[in-house]
This record gives sequence, structure tokens and C-alpha cells, in this order.
Amino acid sequence: MTHADNPNSRPVIALMTDFGIGDGDVGVMKGVMAGITPDAHIIDITHNVMPQNVPSGAWILASSYRYFPKNTVYVCVVDPGVGSVRKAIAVHAGDWFFVGPDNGLFSYIMAEQPIHAATLLTNATYHLPTVSSTFHGRDIFAPVGAYLARGLTEIFHELGTPVDPATLQRLQDSGATRHGTTIDAHIIHIDNFGNLITSIPLTLVPELFTASQLRIVFPGAGKVVEKRRQFFAEGPEDRHPFIYGDSSGYVGIAVRNGNAAQTLDVRLGAHITCIISA
Amino acid sequence: MTHADNPNSRPVIALMTDFGIGDGDVGVMKGVMAGITPDAHIIDITHNVMPQNVPSGAWILASSYRYFPKNTVYVCVVDPGVGSVRKAIAVHAGDWFFVGPDNGLFSYIMAEQPIHAATLLTNATYHLPTVSSTFHGRDIFAPVGAYLARGLTEIFHELGTPVDPATLQRLQDSGATRHGTTIDAHIIHIDNFGNLITSIPLTLVPELFTASQLRIVFPGAGKVVEKRRQFFAEGPEDRHPFIYGDSSGYVGIAVRNGNAAQTLDVRLGAHITCIISA
Amino acid sequence: MTHADNPNSRPVIALMTDFGIGDGDVGVMKGVMAGITPDAHIIDITHNVMPQNVPSGAWILASSYRYFPKNTVYVCVVDPGVGSVRKAIAVHAGDWFFVGPDNGLFSYIMAEQPIHAATLLTNATYHLPTVSSTFHGRDIFAPVGAYLARGLTEIFHELGTPVDPATLQRLQDSGATRHGTTIDAHIIHIDNFGNLITSIPLTLVPELFTASQLRIVFPGAGKVVEKRRQFFAEGPEDRHPFIYGDSSGYVGIAVRNGNAAQTLDVRLGAHITCIISA
Repeated sequence: MTHADNPNSRPVIALMTDFGIGDGDVGVMKGVMAGITPDAHIIDITHNVMPQNVPSGAWILASSYRYFPKNTVYVCVVDPGVGSVRKAIAVHAGDWFFVGPDNGLFSYIMAEQPIHAATLLTNATYHLPTVSSTFHGRDIFAPVGAYLARGLTEIFHELGTPVDPATLQRLQDSGATRHGTTIDAHIIHIDNFGNLITSIPLTLVPELFTASQLRIVFPGAGKVVEKRRQFFAEGPEDRHPFIYGDSSGYVGIAVRNGNAAQTLDVRLGAHITCIISA
Repeated sequence: MTHADNPNSRPVIALMTDFGIGDGDVGVMKGVMAGITPDAHIIDITHNVMPQNVPSGAWILASSYRYFPKNTVYVCVVDPGVGSVRKAIAVHAGDWFFVGPDNGLFSYIMAEQPIHAATLLTNATYHLPTVSSTFHGRDIFAPVGAYLARGLTEIFHELGTPVDPATLQRLQDSGATRHGTTIDAHIIHIDNFGNLITSIPLTLVPELFTASQLRIVFPGAGKVVEKRRQFFAEGPEDRHPFIYGDSSGYVGIAVRNGNAAQTLDVRLGAHITCIISA
Repeated sequence: MTHADNPNSRPVIALMTDFGIGDGDVGVMKGVMAGITPDAHIIDITHNVMPQNVPSGAWILASSYRYFPKNTVYVCVVDPGVGSVRKAIAVHAGDWFFVGPDNGLFSYIMAEQPIHAATLLTNATYHLPTVSSTFHGRDIFAPVGAYLARGLTEIFHELGTPVDPATLQRLQDSGATRHGTTIDAHIIHIDNFGNLITSIPLTLVPELFTASQLRIVFPGAGKVVEKRRQFFAEGPEDRHPFIYGDSSGYVGIAVRNGNAAQTLDVRLGAHITCIISA
């Protein structure tokens, strides 16, 4: 079906890049899309993914995509391999469509959602007439995303050669591993408040708030967090870090009215171990 | 009336948060709203309110809201008390609707505009099915704002239990106090150019440009600003700070082609005294 | 023609300022425009032009405008002379309309596109009722841009007194000068990845990749870059800077998976010399 079948709907395109907002690059992508699908509602997820950090972008997308309307087209560009042999792809998974480089950016989506189809973006009809070697966001992903938002499944199969989803790139170490009462994981995101988001899904620790004791250890740094709180305002007034269930669906570490990343002096990617006592 | 009564109008939602734009949180809120009110025009006021600084957010909103169309719905989230007992509210004041936490964020609006009605957001029909304890922006304020933008006064009264506006939280020290020729105030905003915006409304100093002398003193730091200029390009070339009437409606301090906050080494919240000689 | 002549089109307004996104200023401009032209699609180019740096803003606009739809109205505010005698203008050039201060911001556009008409913004009917001396973005440029996006050429001639385009301000040193095999130029932009964009158009160096040798020298700093690569992923793994053709249409300098501005310790505006050996 296309959007034309439902006159009450409006194409939604969600954008995520590591382009920052200081250049005109994101604006240019939107200009290209506005020329192709004038009635599109273009929504920024973020453009401040850590430059060229695919795992970080993959996680931000994973924590966001479920909240967008059915048929939203995600145009995602964290693309250190632009211009090389890496493939450009579109994936129809769950109720949504994903457009971007084949470098693992859609790992979580492909693990979590049924994959209906995947295609290489080999049909130049849907690209800009001239394709640069350094800005596929503008020349390939933006126009493909805009056409796709308008035509949905009808356009999807015209974008290029179908590809077996099993052959697409996945991140190797995107998650957390539990062995009994020990979980190996890492810090996968630091939010605007300095809260540390771990790679541990809440579903992996059903006893988060009921275990008699639960500690998160930063092996390299000799730091331990062991207080637990259900929401920020309940946290200790003394600025001690505490463990909580983040709204993204992952275990987090926060400081009440403070900045946990600064308090603990922790950076993105830091290794952690979670130790649970029944 | 609802927007459906006027087919030429389009629902406008204005967003202000302290979420920053490095996470996907703002995008997620827009995704939720796009699913509920597809034709909404969602406009960012800013997402860079100093984290958890309610007075700063209140002032930015106060300097902005008058310029948006009638019936704009403001969804504002600066919410250090999320998950605690603080209330979630909607206020219909002047020609606009305001949605957010009951923590003083709407103090200026409630002081400046006639309040037609206020309600607690207790009706879960207008929330997401699952409400987290840490992200009410996504789970409560975004969907309520989107429904309200579509239905306006008709929806307003279904959002929850009416509440007496007099009982809502107000900031205690949001303004400036004048005693004769002396005004006690503070720095309420530092803009992108390093201009210092004081909490002194221009209406409190009608003699700003006619008094024989007018000085702004930073008591703690022993600094004094006493030059006055009507616009930036008229300011002294020598990079001396000067006093001007900011477009927000408040007294400001600037340096021509320079950064007053850096020149004077002043931070948000700094106490000031304004001394006027007739 | 106006947009009403083509019911399938939608007015597009592209915004570029140096206001940053921490204040409410950009939001206020959009609020003003939404009240005048509710169906406008407002797209941000960037609001992080280096404060009051007209050449930098002029270049970002120049690298972006071609990608927006025909009839897009650009509202551009980098305006150190606000409130002084500098003029406010609109220019109809190529397929687009440009609104902003007369200070050189449209230098590239006027050099590259046929200029159909230019006008001073002297008709107060299209301004806000009260015009401040410090925020013409809100009081003049936003409303003029919104009316223009709706009415296009019909409105253009009502905005004020026509002006001879030859009398409008141009930047003096926006480009690059080639004498035989030597080009004098400077760093005109540093992007989000730390790539250095020079003021040398690719069209000025057709032999960029075919010359036997090509060096970019930073005279003051004694630094030389002489490797050349067609795309980033082809760059040397050893983090040596290399020369490439940027997607903006200018010669750039990058470091593979790194930050050239930091590696070379170079700032915006740095003087460079490009030396070509056939």
C-alpha cells in the first residue's frame, strides 16, 4: 500500500546522523526530501551521534524507533565507510522502513523485529543525478528515503536488487552477556543529564529491584555502584550514584540533581560487570 | 472549538525541554505526537535549557510564547521531580495552552495572562499505555499535547481533574524588585552572543535611556557597567560592556562584536543592583 | 505565480542564523512564520554559524541552496549591523528567494545565479507591528519570509523599494586566486568531523587528482599536506591528513577516522597556498 491509499495519513521520515548541526548538511538532506515528497513530516532523532560511532548510533535508534508511527521511514547515516565498497541498503522490518549504510547500524532492529524484505540501493533512478563519493546522505539516502516515504512497499521493490537479510552486517558486541549472577556489559550511552546507560536490557535482570544486593563494578577504575532507586526524585540527596531502570529499557546509573558521568569519571564504552546476590 | 472548525488552520505544538539534542528523546516525543496528530506543525523553542533549571526554562518560555499563533500548545519539560509526587498539569491562559510539570515553569505566563482553566493530567486515556517513572515527556506530556493540539478546549476538560490555578506552583524569585532608584535583580539568561539578560523588565525602568546616569553593579565582583546604547552597532568600538534594551523585553548588557559574559566573567544567576540617578 | 496556482506544492522556508539553539530566538521566528503561512515547511540549514561571521554564513548558504526545491525562500540572519544603517533586503536569484541583511551574506548567490530582482524591505505592512532595534530576525525577516513563501513574485514587488542589485554589498575576499600553478586561499569551513574545507572551488583545480604533485601549505605554521584521496575510506590508515574533493564542491583536507582540524591545529580563516606540479 502507499500513502495515497489513506488520505488521512502523512508520510513521516525520521532522521539520524552524526553530521552535527553546525554545517548545512542536515538541512540539505531535508531540502532534497522536500523536493521529492513535499508533504513529508521530517523529524530529527538526533544528528549528534558520536562521529563515526556505529554502535552508539545503533543504540540510539534502537531506543527510539518503537515510538514513531507505523510506516515511518528512518534515514540513518553514521557512515565511516562512505565511498568504499560498503553497501547501501533499505530494510523493511516490523512496521517500519530503514535506509542507510550496511554497517551494523540496524543490528538491534533486525534482532528485534520480523524482517519482511531487504534491498540494495542499486537503482540510480532514486538517487540524485550526480552521486559524490563523500556525501551519500544527500545523494542516495535522502532521495531514497523520500521516495520510500511516499510509495512504501510499492517503491521498496524498485529501489534495487533484493538481498538476503542474513548476509547484512551486524554489530559483534552490542549487548550484554549473563552467566548466572554475573553480567558483562558496557556503557552504551551517556545522556544529556550525564546519566550512564548500560547495555543491559531490563529484561535480562528481572530481579533488578528485588535482589538482596546488586552491584555494578567498573573493573578498570575500582568503582562500585550499589544503591538502587525506582525514580530520580527518590535518589539519595547526598549525590551518591544509584542504579535505576532507564526509560529506554536498559539499566542506568544516575546521580540525583547531578551528573553521574562526571561524578564517576566514566566515558562511553567503559566496561562494566553487574553482580547479583539473590 | 477545535481545529476541525477552521479548516484553514493547522495545529501548532511548541516544544521546550532540557533534554539536549544528543539523545533521541526529543525525536521520540515528536514521533509520539506525529502518530496522534499527523498534521501538527511541531516547533522547537529550545531543548538546551540548563539541565533541571526551572527558572531559566520559565524565562525562555516567557520571552517566546507571545510570538506563536493563537491556540498553540506548549509542551514544556524541565522536570527534576519526574516520578515523584509533583503534579502534571495543563493550563489554558491567554490565547494558548501549556502542558508540563507543576513546578513553576509557567509562573510568568500565569502572572501575565488571564487563566481560563487548569487541569491535572489524571486521565490515562490520553497517556501512552505504559508510563515510565523517568520519561513523562514521552509517556504523558507528548501525547497529551498532541491530543490537545487537535481538540483544544473540547479535549482540555477531558484531560483530568480540574484544579484551582491559585494552588499551582510559582517561582519565588523570578523577577526584580525596585525601591525608589534602586533595583535588585539577577542575570536570568545568557544568549548565544554572550549578551547578559537581566531579570529587569524594560517596563520597570521607563527612564532607561533618559536618566542622567544609570549603573548596573555586580556586588560580589566589584564590576560596574554604566554605558548605555540603543542598538549593538552603536556600541563603543573599545569592547566596553554597555546597557541596552533587549528584544525579549528585559534590560541587557552587551559588548559590541564581543561576548559580555566572557568580558565580565559573569554566570547565570549572578546577583545585580541597578542604580538610577534622575 | 503564487503557491495557490499549484495546489500540489507547499511553501518551503529555509532558515540560517548565528542565533544558536540555546535561546528561544529561532523558535520565535518559526512561531511568527507559522502564524502567517501555516502550511509552510520550515527547514533549518543551521543556526550555528560562527557568531557574527558573515563570510562563514555566506559559504554555508552557498554550499546548501542548490539542493532545495524551486521557490524556496531563504531567511538568513548573520547580522552584526542590526539596528544600524545597514539595509534589509530580498533578492530573487535563480529559482529561489533570499531574505536578510545587506552585508554580503548573499555574495556567492549573486555571483552564481541570474538576479531577477532585488528590493529593500521598506514596506512595514510586512513587518511585525513593533520592530525592535536588536532582533530583526523576528520582527522583519521572519514575517517577510513567510509572506514571500506564500505569495512569491506577487508579494516580492510589494515588500519595498526596488534596488539595483549592483549596489548591494559583496564580500571582498570570499574566494581563491589562481596564478598559474599557485592558488592563494583560506580555510572557509570546518565541518563536524574536523574536515577542513578550503575556499578553492574544485572547478579551479581540474587537475586535482591528475597533477603529478599537489601540495597545500599553511604558510604561517610550516605545515604541508600532499597526499590525495578520492574518498575517506581510501585514506591512509596512519592518520596522515590528505586532500580530497569535498561534496560541497570545494577542495578539502581530512584525516581518515580522525579530525584534520585537531591534527593540523588549524582554525577557521587560516591562510593557505596550493602549489601544483603538472
